[in-house]
Amino acid sequence: MKITDLTDQLIASYASVGGINHLDGSNLPSRTGIVGITTDLLRLLFPGFFDDKVTHSSEIKMETALLMDSVAGRLEDEILKSIEARPPDDAAKVNPRGAARKLTLEFLGKLPKVREVLTTDVDAAFDGDPAAKSKEEIIVSYPFIEAIAVQRLAHVLYGEGIELIPRIMAEWAHSRTGMDLHPGATIGTHFFIDHGTGTVIGETTTIGKHVKMYHGVTLGARSTSGGQELRGQKRHPTIEDHVTIYPGATILGGETVIGAHSTIGGNVFLMDSVEPHSLVIYDGLDMRVLNKQEKVKASDYHI
Amino acid sequence: MKITDLTDQLIASYASVGGINHLDGSNLPSRTGIVGITTDLLRLLFPGFFDDKVTHSSEIKMETALLMDSVAGRLEDEILKSIEARPPDDAAKVNPRGAARKLTLEFLGKLPKVREVLTTDVDAAFDGDPAAKSKEEIIVSYPFIEAIAVQRLAHVLYGEGIELIPRIMAEWAHSRTGMDLHPGATIGTHFFIDHGTGTVIGETTTIGKHVKMYHGVTLGARSTSGGQELRGQKRHPTIEDHVTIYPGATILGGETVIGAHSTIGGNVFLMDSVEPHSLVIYDGLDMRVLNKQEKVKASDYHI
Amino acid sequence: MKITDLTDQLIASYASVGGINHLDGSNLPSRTGIVGITTDLLRLLFPGFFDDKVTHSSEIKMETALLMDSVAGRLEDEILKSIEARPPDDAAKVNPRGAARKLTLEFLGKLPKVREVLTTDVDAAFDGDPAAKSKEEIIVSYPFIEAIAVQRLAHVLYGEGIELIPRIMAEWAHSRTGMDLHPGATIGTHFFIDHGTGTVIGETTTIGKHVKMYHGVTLGARSTSGGQELRGQKRHPTIEDHVTIYPGATILGGETVIGAHSTIGGNVFLMDSVEPHSLVIYDGLDMRVLNKQEKVKASDYHI
Repeated sequence: MKITDLTDQLIASYASVGGINHLDGSNLPSRTGIVGITTDLLRLLFPGFFDDKVTHSSEIKMETALLMDSVAGRLEDEILKSIEARPPDDAAKVNPRGAARKLTLEFLGKLPKVREVLTTDVDAAFDGDPAAKSKEEIIVSYPFIEAIAVQRLAHVLYGEGIELIPRIMAEWAHSRTGMDLHPGATIGTHFFIDHGTGTVIGETTTIGKHVKMYHGVTLGARSTSGGQELRGQKRHPTIEDHVTIYPGATILGGETVIGAHSTIGGNVFLMDSVEPHSLVIYDGLDMRVLNKQEKVKASDYHI
Repeated sequence: MKITDLTDQLIASYASVGGINHLDGSNLPSRTGIVGITTDLLRLLFPGFFDDKVTHSSEIKMETALLMDSVAGRLEDEILKSIEARPPDDAAKVNPRGAARKLTLEFLGKLPKVREVLTTDVDAAFDGDPAAKSKEEIIVSYPFIEAIAVQRLAHVLYGEGIELIPRIMAEWAHSRTGMDLHPGATIGTHFFIDHGTGTVIGETTTIGKHVKMYHGVTLGARSTSGGQELRGQKRHPTIEDHVTIYPGATILGGETVIGAHSTIGGNVFLMDSVEPHSLVIYDGLDMRVLNKQEKVKASDYHI
Repeated sequence: MKITDLTDQLIASYASVGGINHLDGSNLPSRTGIVGITTDLLRLLFPGFFDDKVTHSSEIKMETALLMDSVAGRLEDEILKSIEARPPDDAAKVNPRGAARKLTLEFLGKLPKVREVLTTDVDAAFDGDPAAKSKEEIIVSYPFIEAIAVQRLAHVLYGEGIELIPRIMAEWAHSRTGMDLHPGATIGTHFFIDHGTGTVIGETTTIGKHVKMYHGVTLGARSTSGGQELRGQKRHPTIEDHVTIYPGATILGGETVIGAHSTIGGNVFLMDSVEPHSLVIYDGLDMRVLNKQEKVKASDYHI
């Protein structure tokens, strides 16, 4: 078997095995392009933080204008591709370029609002983590800030009905931070996820203000079959204000509500709602300690 | 103390502290090289998906031929290094270059088969996730597709007895997706891992068809000591067809079999086999809810 | 609304929304710079392993000298920035450049010692994982080696009182490996974390020798409020020698001590100390298996 024969076989499989080819006039937004745009959006949100050189106030106006111009043009092109991939009867297809421009400007106009909310997230991270020495340390080194900034940006695009682009943005942040925060999730101010690896927040999750979570937390969906029939339904939990969720807790279901001021302990699996001010926890009695007399001292619940 | 003295000290430690140097005629496959090859293999599997420019059908034959040629040459070189690192009496060492070429061609000849199986994985992801808007979204943005594509490629090399290269491929995908899918694992068609961060599938795992898993699932080994003595034994679970495993479940042991059509709930820890059609779940009774009357309503188990 | 108006709005928000700008004479260490330095430090620790070309013994002295010189200069510059960001009355501010040089040389002088400890970690990984075919495979492909090497380097800088740089180093490794190992944690020899995604080790954790952990393990803090008041206190567990901790276990609290030779099972949530030689495990009785007669056979505890 020669390499040319193998090539012919592979090309033949492009024709015969459907579903995973994407050729001829592809309108898919470019992953590389969207990663570049997202990186520049982070620079616009946190000016001076992610550049190696020092940025002076006197230059900031010029630099910001140049960066905004560049981002606007590239984002408009990607949104245009996203619109062109819509069904033929979509309203935006009458004037796709104009629609893309309008959506781009609306999105960029919301950046100051996104900055405002992110400020509350930085505050929450600083207040919630004794290991943080300064707010600057948080912005420069905490993966959570990158994850939540990308989620809040992607959530704006998601709200504008743009497909694929917010998802690619979110998966880029997921890859870098281990946090899978769906662009569809509605998340209140003063949010903080400590460590964050493995935390999943599903598409229809609603989260109140001052919620603190740890790594490995799942706010997920309950159903495993008939997936596509459930699209658009509320499938993920509602977390009210001032809730704390410890590492590894799994909370499932669209009707599950965690009442305000509740604490969910580590590794808890929960598919039912709990009232405000609840503490849900595995205590020591549910574990067995061998080689020792039976462990009966209850945990002190100081979590 | 000057910098030259510190350098001398460090170099002296290269000689005196063994075990972590690799100098002089290294035959180790190159991590950078293998990452490049893996990236190009993904482009061969999903033509047009990971390139920024649009690929037309008329160009696809020429482009595929060029890419196949390039991948074949580079992969052969890496496999050659892997063969040269084998013990002196290994059969392939009689004609290492010839053996490397043969293994390379055999591997590339299996790409159409790998594509066929990956099509079923894309179908499973689309069917299983209401958040997915299209199969294209899945291929472009779901980390699972990258993880399973790399695992299925690495599994072919693993089956050919090639060392190190499949492992480096898998760890590259692990780093990017958070999914640690060992090249040795045997995985059936229509497989899907949603979210995926922290999921671990061990070397001797066997997984049937139509299995759906979530993030944070462990299919692991039970033993903690005498590690090297257990090499080659079946140490990881068997998952039969149509099983669903929820986030954070930990299933250990080479004799553990999860029977077909079973569901394993979130955060379950399991070291025993379960019969087909089982539902294993922590229910509400095993948790304590404080500040409330005792929680006695059983979960409805609609997971 | 034109793009220039949007730019003006964004710039106005830079002035009015405080807390997330960093302009004018920024002294923050550069993330890009520190990533480059860390990569080169790994090359100094594992000579020949991470380069594509073969390094011969005859060249190693010259190459190491050049790399040490380059790393020393760049690290000194970053440490200088870290010192300049300290309060005005800090002792190092009398002669910041001199202090930065001294700290840099002290750090580089400890590289041989770090190599010595890392050798024991490679040994522990090889002994503990039957899937490992050779120690070379471990160094080249196991994410744990990168994570622990960076932690041990960052721990030295942390011990010298240098802020931000060790944290950025650790978060870089976290992003690549999914392991969040705080630079402050004190970790004994012969340490191994298998798979590793989602494992978190907090700032004031103390870990003995010959400890083996899996992915998804949390050695965390208990308190969720009054965060900044707790800075500097021992908030994370103590793990004694020869302890094994299975995937997904969550251990919280500064007074929690896991006695030597103990085993903590998968998904266990623990806020109390356990004596030496303990086995803490969820057994089958704490789970419910439906569609089957009640599951009463106890697990055999052979973990």
